[in-house]
Amino acid sequence: MITMKLTITKSSNFKTKPDPSSLSFGKHFTNHMLMMNYTEGEGWTSPQIVPYQPITLDPSAMSLHYSQSVFEGLKAYRTEDDRILLFRPEKNFERLNRSSDRLSIPAVNEELVLSYLKELLLLDKEWIPTTEGTSLYIRPFIIATEPNLSVAPSTTYTFMIILSPVGSYYAEGINPVSINVEEKFTRAVLGGTGTAKTAGNYSAAYKAQVGASGLGYSQVLWLDGIEKKYIEEVGSMNVFFKINGEVVTPALSGSILEGITRMSTIELLAEWGITVSERRLSMEELYQAYEKGELEEAFGTGTAAVISPIGELNWGDKKMVINNRQTGDLAKKLYDTLTGIQTGKIHDPFNWTVEVN
Amino acid sequence: MITMKLTITKSSNFKTKPDPSSLSFGKHFTNHMLMMNYTEGEGWTSPQIVPYQPITLDPSAMSLHYSQSVFEGLKAYRTEDDRILLFRPEKNFERLNRSSDRLSIPAVNEELVLSYLKELLLLDKEWIPTTEGTSLYIRPFIIATEPNLSVAPSTTYTFMIILSPVGSYYAEGINPVSINVEEKFTRAVLGGTGTAKTAGNYSAAYKAQVGASGLGYSQVLWLDGIEKKYIEEVGSMNVFFKINGEVVTPALSGSILEGITRMSTIELLAEWGITVSERRLSMEELYQAYEKGELEEAFGTGTAAVISPIGELNWGDKKMVINNRQTGDLAKKLYDTLTGIQTGKIHDPFNWTVEVN
Ligand SMILES: Cc1ncc(COP(=O)(O)O)c(C=O)c1O
Ligand SMILES: Cc1ncc(COP(=O)(O)O)c(C=O)c1O
Repeated sequence: MITMKLTITKSSNFKTKPDPSSLSFGKHFTNHMLMMNYTEGEGWTSPQIVPYQPITLDPSAMSLHYSQSVFEGLKAYRTEDDRILLFRPEKNFERLNRSSDRLSIPAVNEELVLSYLKELLLLDKEWIPTTEGTSLYIRPFIIATEPNLSVAPSTTYTFMIILSPVGSYYAEGINPVSINVEEKFTRAVLGGTGTAKTAGNYSAAYKAQVGASGLGYSQVLWLDGIEKKYIEEVGSMNVFFKINGEVVTPALSGSILEGITRMSTIELLAEWGITVSERRLSMEELYQAYEKGELEEAFGTGTAAVISPIGELNWGDKKMVINNRQTGDLAKKLYDTLTGIQTGKIHDPFNWTVEVN
Repeated sequence: MITMKLTITKSSNFKTKPDPSSLSFGKHFTNHMLMMNYTEGEGWTSPQIVPYQPITLDPSAMSLHYSQSVFEGLKAYRTEDDRILLFRPEKNFERLNRSSDRLSIPAVNEELVLSYLKELLLLDKEWIPTTEGTSLYIRPFIIATEPNLSVAPSTTYTFMIILSPVGSYYAEGINPVSINVEEKFTRAVLGGTGTAKTAGNYSAAYKAQVGASGLGYSQVLWLDGIEKKYIEEVGSMNVFFKINGEVVTPALSGSILEGITRMSTIELLAEWGITVSERRLSMEELYQAYEKGELEEAFGTGTAAVISPIGELNWGDKKMVINNRQTGDLAKKLYDTLTGIQTGKIHDPFNWTVEVN
């Protein structure tokens, strides 16, 4: 019988938790994971929480060959009074389904998967670190599993959620990072997969990323793939600039990922009376503002780092040092407010947080 | 001790071979497979042939999340006098390494992996079908295996080769196919991964492919992602047109896969005294030629279908019926010559075939 009732098999082999003071990103995993399978005709069935363990795939499994896969990234926080909070998790599952649509992957029931995630979190609650800057990173993902080399959508899929206690995403913590503007490689274009969180977008960026690292930059700033003029986003973050008092972020052009931190930043700024201008912004315009001394702040927004101030931008032979390599007031206030809400330290006027119990 | 000596573990569980008269593409696999692992610092080590079997991956294995993976596709043929022939296999391993370079994957030793492939083929020789139009499809591929959610190149990889007896790629066999010109979605742009055989490029095309199927077309013709004007390639094939006596194929623009069948077609035509014009070709130019009655032939080239005549091209509201939906003389001669050389039926003046013994 096909059932959507969650079954739970508890792990008997409890792993030791990593030291919260030296957590890196995505290297440690909790005791359990969630799995659910899809078969054409039957839909998504038999969700189960099982001990964290290797998965088995046929060598011809479609996701290995054609990367029909999507993922999400969100975080759980443990509050001082020991509650578990999620930050706008429904937005992640909405985006997962949008990504799936782009990749011809069947949609999941958003409420159901959120309820499974909550069960999983309750089971592995002790893995949510509480040290400042740490959290439990949640990785839902879907992979095509059909053993078939035909270049066509799979008829079977596996949905999984794995959990990883993480520290600060950047070695620099919330200190400003240096970023290289990529002029040769392209992340995405209109009509491509840039708006989807799909596996292929990420490894496609490694070559540029490795090049930037070699030059001493921690991330890449992507330009549009058509004219190589307009700013799109940074590595795994959307990007904001404060130019002569105006806060600007690239409009969702059809090749940029619609970040949930970006969305929250815009809503938060609106609440503070600051309208964000979502528009095209060229490197030329940015550089001219910089030369006139009008580029006041730059920062990235994303689940991993929340708000990441940009201290230096390198564009070919032009180097821009922003806000004297210091975290700007706006970035600081956004970081404090967002992380404050996420960790339950300050009041959440937007009802963004969802308590797990 | 690290060794590059191939170890062989024979399968004791011999599967039944599929009926050669009803072979589809990529659904059946032979008794054995090749595996070789890479670890940073050690390089590629311990190549082994083992029974075909599921592989085990950590749920956080990087290839599942960020699609750091590349693959190849070539074929083995069994001649009438029972020899095994490969078609320009060195070109596939060269291209594999070029794809790997784009994806920040370490290169393999091309001669060594070709020698391993030969051993694998000798072991599973009986799986090479001999019926007209059939062959043994060879799928070398590399996947990132490090259990780590960081968006960065993996430090461990697995290289594999699996083998699949296949029939004709298209249900239509060598009969002309109908193709839809895709105007909304983009396959690749300059600076992206279009020149690499990487997993992410393929599922990115499903949405367009599913749309074309729904309209009754078997494949998609991709236009350039910048101006949406110039012809790039078809599904898993490069594309050629005969226009008023001139043979034209899109130049390798930096977003097109450099097909080995394309290369061989150009070389074969040169041998026949026909110069292929590798240049930009817009849909507008093609349509005007069609209207003037000058579009004489169109065909795709690729390992799977070898030469696939195009009988109909649909471009928005404009439909072009090419050569009265018949296989053109040039396509037929190329198909006969290429498959003749591949299967050892006709003399190979180019030394393209490599015998396995
Ligand atoms: C390409 C890309 N852009 C932007 C973001 C930021 O999105 P979010 O704020 O939802 O984490 C991410 C990470 O999730 C990303 O992968
Ligand atoms: C995107 C793409 N274009 C073209 C080709 C044709 O290349 P080849 O002739 O080497 O098979 C393939 C298939 O291999 C392909 O995947």
